[in-house]
Amino acid sequence: MTVTNQHQKTKAALLRTPLFQDSSASFVDKITLQSKLIQADKGKVLFLHEDRAEYFYIITRGWVKLFRETLDGTQAVIDILTKDHVFGEMALFQNNIYTHSAEVSESAELIRFPLSLLKCEIEDNPKMAMTMLSSMAHHRQFQDQELEHRTIQNAAQRIGCFLLRLADQKQKGAVTLHLPYDKTLVASRLGMQPETFSRALGKLKKETGIHVKGATIKMDSLDQLVRYSCSACSSGFPCGDLMSGKKLVNLKT
Amino acid sequence: MTVTNQHQKTKAALLRTPLFQDSSASFVDKITLQSKLIQADKGKVLFLHEDRAEYFYIITRGWVKLFRETLDGTQAVIDILTKDHVFGEMALFQNNIYTHSAEVSESAELIRFPLSLLKCEIEDNPKMAMTMLSSMAHHRQFQDQELEHRTIQNAAQRIGCFLLRLADQKQKGAVTLHLPYDKTLVASRLGMQPETFSRALGKLKKETGIHVKGATIKMDSLDQLVRYSCSACSSGFPCGDLMSGKKLVNLKT
Repeated sequence: MTVTNQHQKTKAALLRTPLFQDSSASFVDKITLQSKLIQADKGKVLFLHEDRAEYFYIITRGWVKLFRETLDGTQAVIDILTKDHVFGEMALFQNNIYTHSAEVSESAELIRFPLSLLKCEIEDNPKMAMTMLSSMAHHRQFQDQELEHRTIQNAAQRIGCFLLRLADQKQKGAVTLHLPYDKTLVASRLGMQPETFSRALGKLKKETGIHVKGATIKMDSLDQLVRYSCSACSSGFPCGDLMSGKKLVNLKT
Repeated sequence: MTVTNQHQKTKAALLRTPLFQDSSASFVDKITLQSKLIQADKGKVLFLHEDRAEYFYIITRGWVKLFRETLDGTQAVIDILTKDHVFGEMALFQNNIYTHSAEVSESAELIRFPLSLLKCEIEDNPKMAMTMLSSMAHHRQFQDQELEHRTIQNAAQRIGCFLLRLADQKQKGAVTLHLPYDKTLVASRLGMQPETFSRALGKLKKETGIHVKGATIKMDSLDQLVRYSCSACSSGFPCGDLMSGKKLVNLKT
């Protein structure tokens, strides 16, 4: 790819990301010039928990796992991210130390940006600080919900919820979904042991009549999943916090 | 209490809170004039999930429970807060809607402030926006850790972790702790059913040799709790994120 093409790709990626979609052209130009496009295979470690942080990343293809690890090697998956997700930027507010590790979990393309430029932009441009605040508030709501689900949903309901969040929630009638990554990873994303995940998926099939074949899941409609999973959730359906196509809430509005 | 005394109390509370400790005197004066000191009994509901948000609060005494509820009345406790904690302020970034309910869980004294003034201050004063960002990043780290613990700690380890966070972590030798609120509330704060909590507390006593009598917990030293609980945590001991006496990380430093 030529440098011009890379830069075009980077600018497009920045402008697709809620965090940067209202950024000034001059900032986008400046940070694009200092960016680097990276192709990374499955298993590649991008940074480790407690590493000194120099970069943040936008994913343009593939999947990246954020996680932390205890001394004995037990992993807790914090999130699994894909196209248009940003990560690593929080280190700015945490003494420039990454608070988790990041590893490529399905062959990925990423764009790497220096944190120092983002730091300057947040300090100098109140609008950027506001967008950052909105983005963090959005994430906080998502985490609150995740904690709520860990408390009141059973494992089968949590898998149902995960599937509903993959679906186009406005869709009527029959639905076919594809697991975005392998089942072991889905299990760890949901904080479950693989055995628990298998048993819970069996229960979900029985309770809701969904059909599972490999990574493909078919159902007559979303209704049964909604009845089963959303009854143990304080938010309504469709999920209010899903970002797709939505802009961040701006303080000024 | 005279109005002057109330105002002195309010200013002192603001300046003890990390979010406001660097605020300008003029902002502190302005928001103090529009504040209200509230005495509230146990059970008093301050606001409900999805209510339109007009106020944020600082606690000066007692305990407040933040929670969400499913349609069938199952509660998920998000947090239980006490003196010098701020709540309700996040609604600013969430379309001025509270994303959870708040109820007084032990007779409390609170100061109520209009959100509109905080909104203006964040918009007009970049320093305030930065402090807010640091505060949110700190909270995010805490939530990440909470999710990690729900994933990799067993119930007894989670209770041990809760106790360690109540203790003065630098203390050597024998330690006596007091549960800050009743056991049912501790259980729901940890996302456990009361029966699970009882069983897990029994297990913790057996594994670590701590003595529990009512709300009082005694142990020869913190070491055994540390060995038992912190082995299933990705952070070291003492807990890096505990705020007591620490200022928020400032981007400028």
